[in-house]
Amino acid sequence: MPNTLILSIDAMGGDHGPSVVIPAVDIAARQLGDVRFLLHGDQAQIEAELAKAPAARAASEIRHADKAIAMDEKPAQAMRRGKGSSVWNAVEAVKDGQAAAAVSAGNTGALMAISMLVLRMAEGIKRPAIVASWPTMNGISAVLDVGANVESDAEQLVEFAIMGAAFHHAVHGSTKPTVGLLNVGSEEQKGHEEVREAHALLRANSFDFDYRGFVEGNDIAKGTVDVIVTDGFTGNVALKTAEGLARFFGNELRATFKSGPLAMLGAVFASGALGAMRKRMDPGAVNGGPLLGLNGIVVKSHGGADAPGYAAAIRVAADLARSDFTAEIDRNIRRLGAVVSESAASPAEGAAE
Amino acid sequence: MPNTLILSIDAMGGDHGPSVVIPAVDIAARQLGDVRFLLHGDQAQIEAELAKAPAARAASEIRHADKAIAMDEKPAQAMRRGKGSSVWNAVEAVKDGQAAAAVSAGNTGALMAISMLVLRMAEGIKRPAIVASWPTMNGISAVLDVGANVESDAEQLVEFAIMGAAFHHAVHGSTKPTVGLLNVGSEEQKGHEEVREAHALLRANSFDFDYRGFVEGNDIAKGTVDVIVTDGFTGNVALKTAEGLARFFGNELRATFKSGPLAMLGAVFASGALGAMRKRMDPGAVNGGPLLGLNGIVVKSHGGADAPGYAAAIRVAADLARSDFTAEIDRNIRRLGAVVSESAASPAEGAAE
Repeated sequence: MPNTLILSIDAMGGDHGPSVVIPAVDIAARQLGDVRFLLHGDQAQIEAELAKAPAARAASEIRHADKAIAMDEKPAQAMRRGKGSSVWNAVEAVKDGQAAAAVSAGNTGALMAISMLVLRMAEGIKRPAIVASWPTMNGISAVLDVGANVESDAEQLVEFAIMGAAFHHAVHGSTKPTVGLLNVGSEEQKGHEEVREAHALLRANSFDFDYRGFVEGNDIAKGTVDVIVTDGFTGNVALKTAEGLARFFGNELRATFKSGPLAMLGAVFASGALGAMRKRMDPGAVNGGPLLGLNGIVVKSHGGADAPGYAAAIRVAADLARSDFTAEIDRNIRRLGAVVSESAASPAEGAAE
Repeated sequence: MPNTLILSIDAMGGDHGPSVVIPAVDIAARQLGDVRFLLHGDQAQIEAELAKAPAARAASEIRHADKAIAMDEKPAQAMRRGKGSSVWNAVEAVKDGQAAAAVSAGNTGALMAISMLVLRMAEGIKRPAIVASWPTMNGISAVLDVGANVESDAEQLVEFAIMGAAFHHAVHGSTKPTVGLLNVGSEEQKGHEEVREAHALLRANSFDFDYRGFVEGNDIAKGTVDVIVTDGFTGNVALKTAEGLARFFGNELRATFKSGPLAMLGAVFASGALGAMRKRMDPGAVNGGPLLGLNGIVVKSHGGADAPGYAAAIRVAADLARSDFTAEIDRNIRRLGAVVSESAASPAEGAAE
């Protein structure tokens, strides 16, 4: 099978397990062309689902696992007792070269901990990142880190820029992604030391992307740049704030359409278009967030995703695996290494206003 | 005039100057009862507007100022050359005890710099904060800091909690405000050192508010707590991210209603209710953000606010001036002082997951 893409799937993770994962594999098997799947998890449950999913059955091989990691399991616990679980085995198949990428809907902390332990960090990268695909007025932007870290120094922010640009290029099709660094203003002297230092590092070299300087929170929804770089604390808060607002918006829309007879009539006519709009705008609705920075591709699906949603995460894994993604990151990390060792720190100064 | 409230107004600040500020004073004069205004700015321009605003004219006294601070002036520059400007004089009237509070729509950085210089920080408070009134599913929450600082240590976060609670109590009418600390998860061990230490300090004492622990970004729109405390970097990004998303909603809503004949018909029926909804949800739409932590009350209006919007900011100033606000902050800051000197730092440990 020279050009066949092999994907490793944790069939047990997520809120619904095989009853969603196998139908998703069925969709992906029909969409993705020459692809095969290693399905990790409980053999009997997987077989029962495959019986109803002929495309998945034809393209899959079951790898039985006795254990599954619970959705509420702590990362430390998952690392200790995770060996032999469906998620562990799914990631290990990538490490062993049996598969080009792994997909799991298991809990993020456990998936990250196990992936770091099994795959290790890619050479030259200090910290992993989780990237979110965020719908904007201008397409889809990649925002990272949204939760793998709680603090990030300047070099880590630059690593996020490199990884986010390679991700956007591979999955969202930009040829030379534009990149912005999230800050509280667009002037050079704004922000804390980490963002000002990262800004200087990004300015000081030419990477395979187009660095555009500082952007602000409102630039995310505007789609001012393809990739928005921030520390995991700020990114996580921004993403969840937006998800909360999207939900608020949905509720208010429903309430508004019940607010009087004219509005109710309006709802009858417009409900289809409005439902589609709400789904298109929610930053939580685009599924498939890769864990970046590892020696191998691991994509996280939302725990609550339905079969088409999980299939979207499988497509992200396939896009990354078929792209120049890893080599692109490696190439740019080497350039960063050169800059950092040259400049060795001429720290930015001056408190922000 | 024993119980007359006197407010000091920068008539020149904002995108529109006296042509918006004086009509706003006119609205406030009719709404706020026993209140008088000191109007700082260009006498001729103010008089021309007062001629069309009888309620404002009856309640006001003009204080001529030759200078105004431009909307794009840097804070450092505003401090150097600000003396004698309308905004400087408006704040100085509070310092001199001539007025109980000042309102300006001038640029935030300049207003903050001048206010800190003229009024100084309140006793026991290290850093000022800017608070945003944020519409939620549950009323209005106060979010702070949204931009006065780029980094905040644990004690500063506790100060923000104290000031935010006093603000919510005075302006949004909660009797014992609930307070949450913004973090990337709700478990004790989550987040960076500053939030975990602040959490410990808030748990360690009883203030005049009800501390509920960590909250996440999606809790803002949910209205889980009355007051959300975070550092100025994260708060600024969250606020602007939400403002950007609210604008995106507005655009998409318009586009959706043009997407086909049925949807257009829906729009005709529902447009009034939808317009009201959009305005109700935008965290940028609630006007009047006080600068907290100073020896005196200063309220910032949006630069682009219209007359009713500016009048809302004047009402915030009046509510604060008529409340127990300053004493409440002082009382709680003293309690914090007691806790901090007792516990003196038994730092929380353990990296977040």
